[in-house]
Formats: sequence, C-alpha cells, structure tokens
Amino acid sequence: MTRFTRIGLVGGTGREGPGLALRFAQAGAHVVIGSRSAKRAGQTVEQIRALVSGARLEAADNAAAISTCEVVFLCVPFAHAAATVDAHRAAFQPGSLVVDVTVPVTFEGGPPRLIDLPEGSATEHLRRRLPQAVGLAAALKTIPARLLAELGTPLDCDDFVCGDSREVRQRASDVLRLIPGLRPIDAGPLEAARTLERMTLLAIGINRRYKIHDARFRLVGLPAVSS
Amino acid sequence: MTRFTRIGLVGGTGREGPGLALRFAQAGAHVVIGSRSAKRAGQTVEQIRALVSGARLEAADNAAAISTCEVVFLCVPFAHAAATVDAHRAAFQPGSLVVDVTVPVTFEGGPPRLIDLPEGSATEHLRRRLPQAVGLAAALKTIPARLLAELGTPLDCDDFVCGDSREVRQRASDVLRLIPGLRPIDAGPLEAARTLERMTLLAIGINRRYKIHDARFRLVGLPAVSS
Repeated sequence: MTRFTRIGLVGGTGREGPGLALRFAQAGAHVVIGSRSAKRAGQTVEQIRALVSGARLEAADNAAAISTCEVVFLCVPFAHAAATVDAHRAAFQPGSLVVDVTVPVTFEGGPPRLIDLPEGSATEHLRRRLPQAVGLAAALKTIPARLLAELGTPLDCDDFVCGDSREVRQRASDVLRLIPGLRPIDAGPLEAARTLERMTLLAIGINRRYKIHDARFRLVGLPAVSS
Repeated sequence: MTRFTRIGLVGGTGREGPGLALRFAQAGAHVVIGSRSAKRAGQTVEQIRALVSGARLEAADNAAAISTCEVVFLCVPFAHAAATVDAHRAAFQPGSLVVDVTVPVTFEGGPPRLIDLPEGSATEHLRRRLPQAVGLAAALKTIPARLLAELGTPLDCDDFVCGDSREVRQRASDVLRLIPGLRPIDAGPLEAARTLERMTLLAIGINRRYKIHDARFRLVGLPAVSS
C-alpha cells in the first residue's frame, strides 16, 4: 500500500460506498467512486469534498473504477453483485485486488435471514465469477455502513479479513489499516466469509433486540497485531 | 436465579467442566459436578475445593446432575453429547433449563473444521433429542475452556446466548451473569447457534494464525446491558 494506490469503489454511491470513500479520503488515499451513472458518482464526489477538504477523489463509471484501480471494493448491494461482476469481467486487471464487502441478507418475508447460496457465502459465490488472475478478499462485512459515514464516530472495532491467500489478506489488510480505529485481523481462507456473513446477521439481530444501531465486534486476547 | 439454584454440569470432569465449576463456585453458586464416574467427579470436587475455599460443591453421576438441578450445562465433548442426552432422556425435569456449550469442531484430517450436521448446529441437533418440556439455550460456545480454568485471568468478553425463547435466554443469561467479567448478550433464536459455532472455529483459526490461545469476542456498540 502506497500513497499512490488507487482505491476503486464499485457501486460507490450506494449504502456503503460513500462512508467508505469518506474514511479513505480522510486518510489521504486516492479514491475512485464508480457508479452505473457517472453523474451520480460526480454528486457523491462533491458531497465528500464538502466534508473532507483536499480529498483526492475521482468520479467514474464502474468499468473505469475497476480497470484503473489496483484495489477494487465491491460495494453494490448483494442482489446486484454477481451481475455487476459478470458485466465487467473483462475490466478486472490481472494482479489487482478485489475486496467483497457485500452481505447476502434479505429482509423480505419475516426476520432478516441469509440468502442461501450454493457456494456457502457471497464471497465464494463471487469468486466463481471473477477472473482467476484477480485476488479476492472479504472485509468490512461486519462493519455497519451507517457508522462508516459518521466521520465523527470512531469505528473502534476489528475487521475480520479472509481471502484467497495470506498474501491477498495481507494486501487487503494494508489498505484497511488506512482507516483509523479499524484493526484488520487475518480470518483465514475465503470460506471464513460464511462466518463473517453470519456474524453480520447476528449483529443485525442484536441491533433490533437492543434497539441500537452499530453493533460490531472486537477480538479479545490479541494484544497487538503487527502482521 | 437465586443463591439456591443448583447448577449441574454433565461431563463436569472434562475439558470445560472444571473451569466452569471453578467460576460458578467462586461466585458462591451451588454446583453439582456430574460424570460417568462418580469417583472422577469426587476428584474434581476436591481439586476445586483446594482452589476455592467454602465452595458449595457436590459430586454426582450424570443422571443425578441432570435430575436434581434446575440448570444443567452440557459439557461433554460434542462427539458424546447426543448419546449422553439419549441415555439420560428420562432424567431431565420438566421446566428445567439445559445449556449446551458443545462445539462441533473436529481436528481430524487437516485444519479444524465444523462437523456437518443436518440440523445446522450442535444445539439444534440436541434440541431434537431433548424432551420438549425442557428449555434449551446455547452459551459459552466462544469462550475458551482453557481460560475458564485460569481463575486469575478476567474473562473480559461477551457471551452470545441463543435459545428457544426470550424467557429461556433470559434465564440462561441470569445464570451466566454470576461469572464476573462475562456479559451475556441475547443472540436470538436457537438457529443462531450456527453462527456461534462458526465463530468458535474462527477463534480457533485466529489462535493458530497469531500464536495466541484465548481469542474471544466483545460486542462494540452496546454500552450497557440491563436486559
């Protein structure tokens, strides 16, 4: 991770994108906000510039956010994630890092529940669709989107990062470490996304039960992570 | 939960039982240590008495621990849990509370993994076997057994409690609250055991990856639980 790494947000104008862009922009990173509509991306860029002076931001369509960035966060709602990856398959650059932050939770028909996926998790579902030459990690699954957008509130929690390989998890963690108050923790192979997505569901249930909004997790027993 | 509640530990001489007995005994609770061998139960009682003066402890066979206690913790290894419940089905008292602390993790053939269960979790697997008139909760799944036994080390973490009903979770939480440094959190219906068992697997992986021993969880964003 260098100051010159370009961080692309696919679906950067949605629920999670603007908050993530804010946090990265505040850290001085170069952020490319991608959207199906370049116009909407431009509006989000303006909103963030108003909050973070000197922010290094670009508006783009999703294809450009994918093809011009070394690190690409998939911030689209899970329902559109597979279609978005399929539509832009050719834009992903070999050697680039994709970070899946989607959560396959549905609120339809009763209490929130996980969407049943044959691969076991949203991340594994997307792995099958992404080019082999792209590294895939899952992160930020358990971090409330709402909280990311509240710049004044410290995140004060840990982020469990799983991925294809130790090297991929390491790269994703280096990027996430730009965000103050967020400690990335190596959660192992991609399969751990099954756990992280369930933990999000657990946090949603706890939010409802206790009438709070930002339930999230910290790992106890790991004094300091140098990694 | 009153001072007079009897807490029974089925398989109380195993990996998790003695630590749990220690913590409850230290809190002044009345603990019945059950074992297949009443002699081994007696030895564990003596060991705990040597550490906690004035401890209110009884040794028993598993059947007596089940039939004479209002709250029964299932502390046997998961591999023996179903058989133990089946063997003692008639001993469970209507209205009593059973707390499942087992984790269906196997270390055989490669990295630790969850045992595949048709019901989705160990707790749901046991629910099918227990009498209907018994309340079932899952708790302590993510608390390292080793840590329970280290009386000098504060647990300093949260415990996610799921169960049949809000009332069952409440009763289990009242018992768990006896243990200092452990905050019970209502994790919802029994199905949440699927998440808690996966979180244990996650903690085991993190322990190995970071060469630590007691990875566990705290929930951030829930300032104080009055429940």
